[in-house]
Amino acid sequence: MNRSYDVAIIGSGSAGLSALREVRKQTDNFVLINDGFYGTTCARVGCMPSKTLIEAAIAFHRCKALGSFGMGGAEGLVVDIPAVLRRVRRLRDGFVAGMLKLTDEMKEHSIAGRARFLEPQILAVGERRVHAKKIIIATGSRPVVPKEWAALGTRMLTSDDLFEQETLPSRMAVIGMGALGSEIAQALARLGIEVTGFGSDEHIAGLSDPDVNRQAVALLRAEFAIHLGQAAEPVIEGERIRVHAGNESAVADKVLVALGRRPNVDQMGIENLGIELDKHGVPPFDARSMQIAGLPVYIAGDASRHLPLLHEALDEGYIAGYNAPRNEPVCFERRVPLAIVFTDPGIAVVGQSFKTLNEDEIVIGEVDFSSQARARMAEVNHGLLRVYAERSSDRLLGAEMCAPQGEHLAHLLALAVQRKLTVRELLGMPFYHPVLEEGLRTALRDAASKLGGAAAPDLGYCDRMGADAID
Amino acid sequence: MNRSYDVAIIGSGSAGLSALREVRKQTDNFVLINDGFYGTTCARVGCMPSKTLIEAAIAFHRCKALGSFGMGGAEGLVVDIPAVLRRVRRLRDGFVAGMLKLTDEMKEHSIAGRARFLEPQILAVGERRVHAKKIIIATGSRPVVPKEWAALGTRMLTSDDLFEQETLPSRMAVIGMGALGSEIAQALARLGIEVTGFGSDEHIAGLSDPDVNRQAVALLRAEFAIHLGQAAEPVIEGERIRVHAGNESAVADKVLVALGRRPNVDQMGIENLGIELDKHGVPPFDARSMQIAGLPVYIAGDASRHLPLLHEALDEGYIAGYNAPRNEPVCFERRVPLAIVFTDPGIAVVGQSFKTLNEDEIVIGEVDFSSQARARMAEVNHGLLRVYAERSSDRLLGAEMCAPQGEHLAHLLALAVQRKLTVRELLGMPFYHPVLEEGLRTALRDAASKLGGAAAPDLGYCDRMGADAID
Repeated sequence: MNRSYDVAIIGSGSAGLSALREVRKQTDNFVLINDGFYGTTCARVGCMPSKTLIEAAIAFHRCKALGSFGMGGAEGLVVDIPAVLRRVRRLRDGFVAGMLKLTDEMKEHSIAGRARFLEPQILAVGERRVHAKKIIIATGSRPVVPKEWAALGTRMLTSDDLFEQETLPSRMAVIGMGALGSEIAQALARLGIEVTGFGSDEHIAGLSDPDVNRQAVALLRAEFAIHLGQAAEPVIEGERIRVHAGNESAVADKVLVALGRRPNVDQMGIENLGIELDKHGVPPFDARSMQIAGLPVYIAGDASRHLPLLHEALDEGYIAGYNAPRNEPVCFERRVPLAIVFTDPGIAVVGQSFKTLNEDEIVIGEVDFSSQARARMAEVNHGLLRVYAERSSDRLLGAEMCAPQGEHLAHLLALAVQRKLTVRELLGMPFYHPVLEEGLRTALRDAASKLGGAAAPDLGYCDRMGADAID
Repeated sequence: MNRSYDVAIIGSGSAGLSALREVRKQTDNFVLINDGFYGTTCARVGCMPSKTLIEAAIAFHRCKALGSFGMGGAEGLVVDIPAVLRRVRRLRDGFVAGMLKLTDEMKEHSIAGRARFLEPQILAVGERRVHAKKIIIATGSRPVVPKEWAALGTRMLTSDDLFEQETLPSRMAVIGMGALGSEIAQALARLGIEVTGFGSDEHIAGLSDPDVNRQAVALLRAEFAIHLGQAAEPVIEGERIRVHAGNESAVADKVLVALGRRPNVDQMGIENLGIELDKHGVPPFDARSMQIAGLPVYIAGDASRHLPLLHEALDEGYIAGYNAPRNEPVCFERRVPLAIVFTDPGIAVVGQSFKTLNEDEIVIGEVDFSSQARARMAEVNHGLLRVYAERSSDRLLGAEMCAPQGEHLAHLLALAVQRKLTVRELLGMPFYHPVLEEGLRTALRDAASKLGGAAAPDLGYCDRMGADAID
């Protein structure tokens, strides 16, 4: 009953499975402890179903605008919300099944149940005692639901319930205009639901650049009502819910609460690690090794509350899983930050965000997509992109955007920031024509001119016999 | 009447205007000689109207597939081809107007008429003699129309005429499955025209990778008939045209001839430069300085027949315009090759193409988009992408693809190739989730595993006190 392992992994979500992959390379004497569902947050209730719903909403929205291309009949298009949700679940179930197959193989290495720390190397799972030389906490997170919203009962949804609905009501309030709130509110509005969004902050979707935020808010407001800057609270009015925020209010049949997620580290005896926790109840750890305060304990994924993004959870699982079976942990360079919100136009923050930079030390290059050629051809000419470059080094440090196909521009910028390129070096790549990347080039050239390189060519000079090599 | 200039630029298209911008920085004593239309090939009859038409066709095609998302009414959508073409011309006219404004300002520096070389530094324009210390040839190109097709008269269109049509007939043949032929044939088919495409080669759209080409042909063939590998020829049958190619034939009301473009250097006394021309009648030049064979004459843009792409024409204009006013030409590094064809999925060739590589010296990484998660969510899960990496250096050399949102993946790859990154270095960037770039990552990981780095992490190790720094 009681066994001793080299490594115990608590949680079989994205981070836990990523850790598992590395742990197995070093030892067969490991155990995976999981409570409740198998399948990851990402596949079950996160990235996968949300983006599937969003793609349906984008497709419908584009089609409603078909008239501007010289086509007719768009007024006859109708959304069948139950059918849209069935498709979301059908695809979602396929993504989840991919995960479950992996965990099924693992049966002899698995324990079902909730793990509690008794000591840094001893866990209790029900009656069982699990001793492990190293333990990885990969317990994920759950939606934050303040009690006034929880009191709405079945009229309150979170991302855990949203995709399980057979249908959706005609009026919904979305509480929280962060990444999930912004993208889902827009998608629901595009599917024909009367949506009102509430955000306690003036900034939405993780943006910190005031100009980009203003554009993003304006573009979303053109599609649904948004009240920002005041905390929202619900009042039940018979069958309906009235959501108040300052002087504003809106009536809804159901409310989607999107107020962020909290790490699942609160019911696992984390206090028995014998170290001080931060205000979120999370133990201190080194983000480059994922080790908790010199203990034989590692943390990864949403549980760390560090970067609750799938690709970061996989990296953290990788790092924890690489280090746990080894005597001494190794330190890894984390990737350049990249956060994408799947609104349309797409919102993204790449590298250093505006708020982390000192305006005296940077120049800002900008492009407004309203007159960008390719964006006009595709009738998606909305949005603003701003790039931040360091005055002293000419290096590109980051960008914020609300831009057509922003997710792709964000990846291009992420590579440039990751490789520590200067603005001029990035301008040295080919930009085809006519493409949205030419909009990014406009922003880069704007930055280059402010860096004092206005007359400098994008092309590099080369050395050769018989020609002056300059620069 | 006869004047002597520092620089004469022949042609006011994209390359000529790009050259002009640089020449003006060095001298006011220049002249721009232009025959016929003002406005560039790109804006008038090339990139701009074609991509505007293609965006309409893509929008319509996506909407016809709305049922797969759980929406109804798509069967009632109709294309109004005259309206689609009017929109193309309306946007096109706006793009051209942007160009004309620039050339209007230039009136006192302009001569209207056809320039002919009398000597390397003397041009005839009608009765006028223009002496110039340096001359830039930027005369562009025109569609190739073999005489058997020209004989069809108004039933034969090229890209010069296509966008001027009030409407289009119900059956069209497209002759030539290069970049323009492939993308326009697909667009016309999506707009409801019965299209048959003919290509004399088995490869389409500039692809050289047999696997990618096979996928691209199959995907296009699912939308319209394509006959490859045989030269096509027309036979007039009363009101109709029958196009024969080997044992295949198809009937059409009009034919679009897309057999490439020839440089406009054949009626300008080019023989009076006193140098041997290549088989296309183009004088030899150095692509890094754009100078013609040691003469005080430069060439740029489609006229050079080097890389008939807008972004390359601008670079060549820049180089020629930079060098012409100076005593000694400077040599520039050209950008990494990038060719995009706006089919859907998008076709692209980045860096070194398959055919330029020795298979023994490379590994090939591959991804099939049919099961890629994000592509499935957006119902665009078709296509193949292959990356080529050098065995000896692990460097990414190039890629060919027919992939969803291929143009964006192509730019990301172009930056990587331009910066001479290894596959591992490119894998070090963040890949968000769920995005199409994860498909590219699959191909990169495939290549990395063949380079012997299967177990290597994407994350870099970092040095720090107290941890083993490895790698």
